[in-house]
Amino acid sequence: MTERRLGIIMNGVTGRMGTNQHLVRSILAIRSQGGVALKDGTRVMPDPILVGRNREKVQRLAQAHGIERWTTDLEAALHSTADEVYFDAASTNLRKENLEKAIAAGKHVYCEKPTAASLEDAIALWRLARRAGVKHGVVQDKLFLPGLLKMKRLVESGFFGRILSVRGEFGYWVFEGDWQSAQRPSWNYKKAEGGGIILDMLCHWRYVLDNLFGEVKAVSCLGATHIPKRWDEQGRAYEADADDAAYATFELEGGIIAQINSSWATRVRRDDLVTFHVDGTLGSAVAGLTRCWTQARVNTPKPVWNPDLRQPIDFFAQWQEVPDNDPFENGFKAQWELFIRHVCEDGPFPWNLEAGAKGVQLAEAGLRSWKERRWVEIPALEG
Amino acid sequence: MTERRLGIIMNGVTGRMGTNQHLVRSILAIRSQGGVALKDGTRVMPDPILVGRNREKVQRLAQAHGIERWTTDLEAALHSTADEVYFDAASTNLRKENLEKAIAAGKHVYCEKPTAASLEDAIALWRLARRAGVKHGVVQDKLFLPGLLKMKRLVESGFFGRILSVRGEFGYWVFEGDWQSAQRPSWNYKKAEGGGIILDMLCHWRYVLDNLFGEVKAVSCLGATHIPKRWDEQGRAYEADADDAAYATFELEGGIIAQINSSWATRVRRDDLVTFHVDGTLGSAVAGLTRCWTQARVNTPKPVWNPDLRQPIDFFAQWQEVPDNDPFENGFKAQWELFIRHVCEDGPFPWNLEAGAKGVQLAEAGLRSWKERRWVEIPALEG
Amino acid sequence: MTERRLGIIMNGVTGRMGTNQHLVRSILAIRSQGGVALKDGTRVMPDPILVGRNREKVQRLAQAHGIERWTTDLEAALHSTADEVYFDAASTNLRKENLEKAIAAGKHVYCEKPTAASLEDAIALWRLARRAGVKHGVVQDKLFLPGLLKMKRLVESGFFGRILSVRGEFGYWVFEGDWQSAQRPSWNYKKAEGGGIILDMLCHWRYVLDNLFGEVKAVSCLGATHIPKRWDEQGRAYEADADDAAYATFELEGGIIAQINSSWATRVRRDDLVTFHVDGTLGSAVAGLTRCWTQARVNTPKPVWNPDLRQPIDFFAQWQEVPDNDPFENGFKAQWELFIRHVCEDGPFPWNLEAGAKGVQLAEAGLRSWKERRWVEIPALEG
Amino acid sequence: MTERRLGIIMNGVTGRMGTNQHLVRSILAIRSQGGVALKDGTRVMPDPILVGRNREKVQRLAQAHGIERWTTDLEAALHSTADEVYFDAASTNLRKENLEKAIAAGKHVYCEKPTAASLEDAIALWRLARRAGVKHGVVQDKLFLPGLLKMKRLVESGFFGRILSVRGEFGYWVFEGDWQSAQRPSWNYKKAEGGGIILDMLCHWRYVLDNLFGEVKAVSCLGATHIPKRWDEQGRAYEADADDAAYATFELEGGIIAQINSSWATRVRRDDLVTFHVDGTLGSAVAGLTRCWTQARVNTPKPVWNPDLRQPIDFFAQWQEVPDNDPFENGFKAQWELFIRHVCEDGPFPWNLEAGAKGVQLAEAGLRSWKERRWVEIPALEG
Repeated sequence: MTERRLGIIMNGVTGRMGTNQHLVRSILAIRSQGGVALKDGTRVMPDPILVGRNREKVQRLAQAHGIERWTTDLEAALHSTADEVYFDAASTNLRKENLEKAIAAGKHVYCEKPTAASLEDAIALWRLARRAGVKHGVVQDKLFLPGLLKMKRLVESGFFGRILSVRGEFGYWVFEGDWQSAQRPSWNYKKAEGGGIILDMLCHWRYVLDNLFGEVKAVSCLGATHIPKRWDEQGRAYEADADDAAYATFELEGGIIAQINSSWATRVRRDDLVTFHVDGTLGSAVAGLTRCWTQARVNTPKPVWNPDLRQPIDFFAQWQEVPDNDPFENGFKAQWELFIRHVCEDGPFPWNLEAGAKGVQLAEAGLRSWKERRWVEIPALEG
Repeated sequence: MTERRLGIIMNGVTGRMGTNQHLVRSILAIRSQGGVALKDGTRVMPDPILVGRNREKVQRLAQAHGIERWTTDLEAALHSTADEVYFDAASTNLRKENLEKAIAAGKHVYCEKPTAASLEDAIALWRLARRAGVKHGVVQDKLFLPGLLKMKRLVESGFFGRILSVRGEFGYWVFEGDWQSAQRPSWNYKKAEGGGIILDMLCHWRYVLDNLFGEVKAVSCLGATHIPKRWDEQGRAYEADADDAAYATFELEGGIIAQINSSWATRVRRDDLVTFHVDGTLGSAVAGLTRCWTQARVNTPKPVWNPDLRQPIDFFAQWQEVPDNDPFENGFKAQWELFIRHVCEDGPFPWNLEAGAKGVQLAEAGLRSWKERRWVEIPALEG
Repeated sequence: MTERRLGIIMNGVTGRMGTNQHLVRSILAIRSQGGVALKDGTRVMPDPILVGRNREKVQRLAQAHGIERWTTDLEAALHSTADEVYFDAASTNLRKENLEKAIAAGKHVYCEKPTAASLEDAIALWRLARRAGVKHGVVQDKLFLPGLLKMKRLVESGFFGRILSVRGEFGYWVFEGDWQSAQRPSWNYKKAEGGGIILDMLCHWRYVLDNLFGEVKAVSCLGATHIPKRWDEQGRAYEADADDAAYATFELEGGIIAQINSSWATRVRRDDLVTFHVDGTLGSAVAGLTRCWTQARVNTPKPVWNPDLRQPIDFFAQWQEVPDNDPFENGFKAQWELFIRHVCEDGPFPWNLEAGAKGVQLAEAGLRSWKERRWVEIPALEG
Repeated sequence: MTERRLGIIMNGVTGRMGTNQHLVRSILAIRSQGGVALKDGTRVMPDPILVGRNREKVQRLAQAHGIERWTTDLEAALHSTADEVYFDAASTNLRKENLEKAIAAGKHVYCEKPTAASLEDAIALWRLARRAGVKHGVVQDKLFLPGLLKMKRLVESGFFGRILSVRGEFGYWVFEGDWQSAQRPSWNYKKAEGGGIILDMLCHWRYVLDNLFGEVKAVSCLGATHIPKRWDEQGRAYEADADDAAYATFELEGGIIAQINSSWATRVRRDDLVTFHVDGTLGSAVAGLTRCWTQARVNTPKPVWNPDLRQPIDFFAQWQEVPDNDPFENGFKAQWELFIRHVCEDGPFPWNLEAGAKGVQLAEAGLRSWKERRWVEIPALEG
């Protein structure tokens, strides 16, 4: 059994999501399972080098997980021939620059979203990677949520008949930071640092809608900054000038309408932190992060509007849970394995920098729609 | 105790809502409780005359409820001096014409919504009534739903702090009519007969939003006809060309955003057939038709996004129900009593033909927004 | 509003089913609701005359329900012009003779099943009625069970995709009559008196299968007399020589297989006294007399055979009940109303003496299959 | 304490059942408990050598479980004197050939069912083993299921009185393999590879019926291929031409009727993946894989057919569970221990190649019954 080493420069995995999802549950988990098996039987063993600007933080992270290689010198790492892949989960504002350097150094690149701060930049990156002939990919983790994998099953099984509409509710209350500390970093709420829920979430909604229901064709979006004053990690008050809520409606191919609210200033009374409610002629479904419930046409109650009676129907009782049937892998790991196969044996990987640019395109269109108070069409990208 | 008779011409109460709500639970209920007591102790006893076009139907209805006066001749009824009030719950398409006749005959008028098919007509009606010096009112029943009365209590109590946003979900699955009969009349789904959910529901949302949260300032609305083929009361297939779903966002005074979906093609997984979810800085609430639940700032959980775990929080468990504390009257009856006092002792009645025109204004603006794919502003009406 | 009287000779309604279902819940219920409304507005009021051989019984029944007309003289009743319809729920062995007389007297005929003791006789009756030009119908009450009406809805809604198979389980423990009295009449267990579960139930299965799933094309049936000794209504032991269990498999058009066990010697561990389990490519359903449960393709668990673990899946939990949505009429009454419309305004009534003969055909084929130990084909009847 | 080594050639245990049940839970479990104790106190320690055609698979399996001996050369293994027993769980199509070689090499043989692809071959094998004087056995694991062991207890206790009938339901939904992967190997659904539910399951039903209730005397069987297109382990579509459902009725000695449906295209609404419902004059029982419930004559409810009422009886409530009282061993291990004693001290082992041939006989008769559309008798085998 042949084993092949794959050097991976991991930049910016000292944050919560980077450490937990990309490092521990993906790369380290792949190592401890003996690597990724290719079709020819070769096992690819990822060998990470951690990169970070804060020497102490990156060193501590490396030691905590028994990782030998770490550095604060990104340039040097990129110019070493020991590593073939560059992964970027560092600051959004530096992503484009970092990815350009990595591509210039001939690395295959994989990164978090958004891939750039503007559509123009995102397309430029895509073109650059294509011309350089390197492999490229963008994290689209929500596609691998068990709840959305079940939703995809439902779509593929024909359960819905013709799909009519999608309702999404994302969000929860992010504490202001004064009387209780905030559970998300402060940069999310500052325009100048790349914050804003539209830029963050519309990138996600693009690939979720495109992959599950149909290509997004147009968007109408209204943003808001519901909480204009927050307190940061050091307890200092700051002006939160980025949008913290977005009320968006999308037209998808096939006449499907998707209406999705995203908010960090809402209290949750629903099945999960994000829910997608899909109605079709033959049935409906609601998916959260991990669970999914269906109501088939034949189980649909026939309510009548009667203001005199307290509602006699429990509208949660006619829904049936979709069983797991198979265990679900961690989604970040599953996508990492696909990217490793993409690099090592040219396996399929549709979520590349074009897909990344599409996410940015939708976010940008959402922002324009908000500003111009009108629907904005979403044309196909010219690569 | 003085008793005063008040003759009321009731036109179009042979339908389900008209019979149940306006006749049985309002006028007849008021009669059996001994009328409406004015401040001076006088008891006003409503004395209805039923008007309908189908002789057999109106006769049967009158007999079933022991009502002596009924007719098919609206003109004659209007020109009799026996009755001071004209009530209209007949076909939407005939409303303006009927109200004009009644006003011309000097009757006080009370009617269902929409008050007219166009804003221009609705304003004209309002002006006509004002100039004629008659009292005028429009049914705004949803304001009297126990769930919304509780919501109003919350607003008035200061529970919410600053209100940030309102999310509304209205609707349920109206059966197509083939394999199971439809639970709503077929005219609702035909443009030519005054159907369409935007015209129907945006009139309601106007007074709900205006009265509970703040004046509507702008609307963005997308309509859809999700189910283009239905079967009518006789089992005949027909083309359903009216909109059966509306995805609307509203800007209210004070920067509040309201996002409300209305649909007759959705399966219900929520607390009631309509729900309003309100978020404020100090607390949130969700109201259905009769019940209402709150979550105060201090009871707000702090969820963290973790795709690896099945959600450990039950997001319904942190909400606390608002108690009734007092019995709630039937809303139609409550509003009838207010209108009777308005007629008989000039009691306050803010929901007049101007309010009716505002409802039509919002519906019309919603339709224009859909057509022109942009936000439409809602100016103050010029009376 | 015109009213029309319809005289009905009711023969043999002194038994439990006859009294409860045909007399009280059908004819008397129709009378108290004001008759059956025809399309032209006429209301048909059934006017029964009770016929029975036991003077005391029939008189007591008539008096108990305030029915003025009763007799023990069937011939006289048939030759009176006061009555247009003859209904027969009397002994199976006399059915053919009674129906022949009624047809000869020009009556429209409606009857219980089986319509005759042999296919030859059943066909002869059908031909006779057709030649005589009278209307004819056969009770097929199971079609009107709410559980089977829901099953029909499921079939019509397309819920099943392609239907693969039907499993039926009918029956319960009929006590032997010694230590506890039997809950069914003793003649059911005696060949000479027309007993036997094959003759009884295969008539039912014919119309259930034909109407819900597809025409029966062939049958393989094994009968048994599991309990050869029983005690009758007077506590006397008798030899039970008729079959009390039938294990039958049917081929239906479209390649559907139906396997139905019927037994009066089984103890029930299932949802109801009769259950039909239908499997299709897109979903499955189980119907009892009144309730019905579904499992859609997408809610199907993926069990793995593991003899080491107590089954971790509760196989009842993945099923969702089909809601009533509309009230269900008593099935006997519903079919009576249809027959009355068939007589008075030629309304559709597919369950005529041909359908009755088909039931007898299947019962006869089942008995032949048992005797000849082979599949028996079911050809179309030649009328 | 004497210890005796018993060399066992294990062929074809790389599959799920072979590895889990025969290797890990039987042979390795016996080793870790210190072997099988004979009457004379000797402990027999099984010493397996794994045989497989795929070198990598068999090596990995051996290493994973610390087994020193493995090979791809079956001939060499059979001709070594180190091993006395040959066990075969390899492909059904090669079983006869492998067993012949093993018998020729003087090995005692133990194998999975079916023992051969035809009755003729199965009888020939039986004769061969008998003439060779080797010990021989066939896996009949279902007999050792706790549910069926409890059922056997009930039979032996006289609980049933005279047994009237047995109803079996086996099966569940085996996924097609497109939108969800199949949970059984694709060869099961291909005729050419020895697939088909009749061949698979009727072998089981033979020993279950023979051992628990009475010798099978005749069979009527209808097969079907409900799902003609499936997707294999590599995601490739294939024509599923083997039968995936069997509707069979059996006559047993003593007039007992057994009706058993087997299907891989049914959704489960019952107590377990297989259930046997037995009715007797004094009581009834239903057994699943591990649990068993009884209803004694005296606990039998007396239901009455009433189509007007929703069933008031919960027909699961009158059943009482049969307690374990003693722990149940893994059935495969229990049978292995019996076979080891059979080899080493001539302990009783009734489930030999004759029993194996009987299973094949019933499968073959089932297939003939299907083809010839008639009952097929099951004569005693001539050895």
